[in-house]
Amino acid sequence: MDVPLLDGLQLIEGSAFVAAPSGGMTLAQLGADVIRFDQIGGGLDHRRWPLTAEGESIYWAGLNKGKRSIQVDLRSPEARELLTALIAGAGSFLTNFPARGWMAPETLREHRPDLVMLAITGNRDGSTALDYTVNCAVGFPAATGPVDGGEPINHVLPAWDLICGQTAALAMLAADRHRLRTGDGASMSLALSDVALVAVSALGHVAEAQINGTERARHGNDVYGAYGTDFLTGDGERIYAVGISPSQWSRLIEATDAADAVAVIAAEEGLDLDHDGDRYAARDRISAAIAPWIAARPLAAVGARFDELGVCWGRYQTFTQLVAEDPRCSTDNELFREVDQTGIGTYLTPGSPVAIDGRLPVEPEPAPVLGQHTDEILAEELGLSAAEIARLHDERVVAGS
Amino acid sequence: MDVPLLDGLQLIEGSAFVAAPSGGMTLAQLGADVIRFDQIGGGLDHRRWPLTAEGESIYWAGLNKGKRSIQVDLRSPEARELLTALIAGAGSFLTNFPARGWMAPETLREHRPDLVMLAITGNRDGSTALDYTVNCAVGFPAATGPVDGGEPINHVLPAWDLICGQTAALAMLAADRHRLRTGDGASMSLALSDVALVAVSALGHVAEAQINGTERARHGNDVYGAYGTDFLTGDGERIYAVGISPSQWSRLIEATDAADAVAVIAAEEGLDLDHDGDRYAARDRISAAIAPWIAARPLAAVGARFDELGVCWGRYQTFTQLVAEDPRCSTDNELFREVDQTGIGTYLTPGSPVAIDGRLPVEPEPAPVLGQHTDEILAEELGLSAAEIARLHDERVVAGS
Repeated sequence: MDVPLLDGLQLIEGSAFVAAPSGGMTLAQLGADVIRFDQIGGGLDHRRWPLTAEGESIYWAGLNKGKRSIQVDLRSPEARELLTALIAGAGSFLTNFPARGWMAPETLREHRPDLVMLAITGNRDGSTALDYTVNCAVGFPAATGPVDGGEPINHVLPAWDLICGQTAALAMLAADRHRLRTGDGASMSLALSDVALVAVSALGHVAEAQINGTERARHGNDVYGAYGTDFLTGDGERIYAVGISPSQWSRLIEATDAADAVAVIAAEEGLDLDHDGDRYAARDRISAAIAPWIAARPLAAVGARFDELGVCWGRYQTFTQLVAEDPRCSTDNELFREVDQTGIGTYLTPGSPVAIDGRLPVEPEPAPVLGQHTDEILAEELGLSAAEIARLHDERVVAGS
Repeated sequence: MDVPLLDGLQLIEGSAFVAAPSGGMTLAQLGADVIRFDQIGGGLDHRRWPLTAEGESIYWAGLNKGKRSIQVDLRSPEARELLTALIAGAGSFLTNFPARGWMAPETLREHRPDLVMLAITGNRDGSTALDYTVNCAVGFPAATGPVDGGEPINHVLPAWDLICGQTAALAMLAADRHRLRTGDGASMSLALSDVALVAVSALGHVAEAQINGTERARHGNDVYGAYGTDFLTGDGERIYAVGISPSQWSRLIEATDAADAVAVIAAEEGLDLDHDGDRYAARDRISAAIAPWIAARPLAAVGARFDELGVCWGRYQTFTQLVAEDPRCSTDNELFREVDQTGIGTYLTPGSPVAIDGRLPVEPEPAPVLGQHTDEILAEELGLSAAEIARLHDERVVAGS
């Protein structure tokens, strides 16, 4: 591929935290020119944990790879005019700031009538919500954790933020396509709580409540509605193995010498264990039939046999183990490069997970230093002279790095 | 908006389960014509739980809204030729089937040289992986749950599948844009494990291990690196409240009359509680200062005060409570309609979470009945005559509904 997929797409991003920045980064890692603006000194997320010993935000570096950075005094009318001009020039604007005042779509459209803009909000009505306050409300924490446990268990992964970021990115591309075909822009908004509601509906929880009138009970670490659970190996490692599709199921019971025991279970329970729902119903007995084989062997032997037969399984790892021991999290994986991040150091950095002919579409670049591109943006995008740029610095309308 | 954003985009989808179907559905709900093909009688996911009392899959209905359905005998060479012709006509193909044989990109490109195709895989090397086997490996279950708990706790939400589906959808749009500009197609692949690795890197876990050499310890239901946690109200309801941004923090301590106590904590601990990291360090003491106010009042009073001040909070709800009690999960929310799903009934069904000028971009439609569109697709997309279509039915190459 001679040019990246999103060559020629320029996006202005006014953002903080996870959702909007991950969306903008996704587009940058497919070749878009993403310019993120921040308040001079950094936005609300600029020192977000985890930090290095020197106080640099690993979080910020991770979520803003490959972007250009301009820092401005957002309270200054002149800075707002500069940003408005940038947005008008780019024609695409992604934000999770309140879309009011100079950032209101109707205001920006005065400068770019065919603007493609998306504002991420908490709730649809504009009221505040975050991943944590949305997730508890949509039912998952109550359904998470041991069957005999009591309290709801939050997810550690901010899944709604990440899904929202991807949805925002695709909406920008959909609207860009629409504009290419019709000439019309789009004023879009995307509520984090709506992202969660769409998912909880897609997965059937809403209909299950309305149609079946049932509550989805906890099921611990078991897969719901099919067969899969965690096991301990003889050397104390925890693994997860699934038999969801027919071939996964047959391989799993073959690998663990459980076929005879499974046949007995089917007969005694009057179930057809070729059906995933019946496997779910009999899961405890099935697990009791499978677990001993796994418990009698060290992880290496279990893994070797499982891989030989193509069983679908995984090992439980901490973040540290993932990085230290899993070849998928290394430069053995085309996804990763060792990239030097200014102020932090060199570490494994992925590009886009989308492979084109098996290869990374765009070499991963570090996150910018705040204000690293201020001058080049003012000169090249807005055509300002060196004198004009110097004045803006002197008056603290903008800052470099 | 006169025409939907993705008007004119036609996608063929060969899929099962969550990732690929949710990606195709996302595009359908922005106006694309998505044709999903299945084996006659249904694929591996066609009877996936949850089911209605009559055995209809609520899961399948939720993940395939708004698509057209053709069912064919996938083992039949003639059926494969028909699907190849459909793919060649549409020019876009999304699948999580193994991209081999007739579905290999190089084979399909013989019929459509500028094909845009994306194949979702488990691991990058093509070996099998699912959300459950990826999630345990990338570190989150080990980090989930009570601080004093022992065993890893799986997520109930298949977050990687959902993120993967959104990423696949945006990659299709990115490649479509590239084709519009250059005439070149794209052969893309997307590994579920790479989706997870990109996210775990974006959130800083990889660098934290490599640069800081630290393991992310469990932090229960607390927000990491800032302030937020769960509380019990006087009437036994659980809520989540956050003070992440400065304004969220000041509103929360104002609402709970905790400002004086917080000042004492700051002084005694030598911390600056204007910094989110310092709030995290002092979180247990902060929570002890805030919790009594919440525990002394019923949920209604807590909520009223919080909403009055604009505190960022949420209530823990089960799926049933979400549907029964939360106005966001009702037709009060523009996102939802009551839609009749054949064989299941009428229930709350969302469209796209992307709002355009505040409105649903496309009215949500039910999932198809399997094979509902076989004949119209054969006639309109492939130009087959009634006699040819009848023969295909007679020979069980295709089936209707």
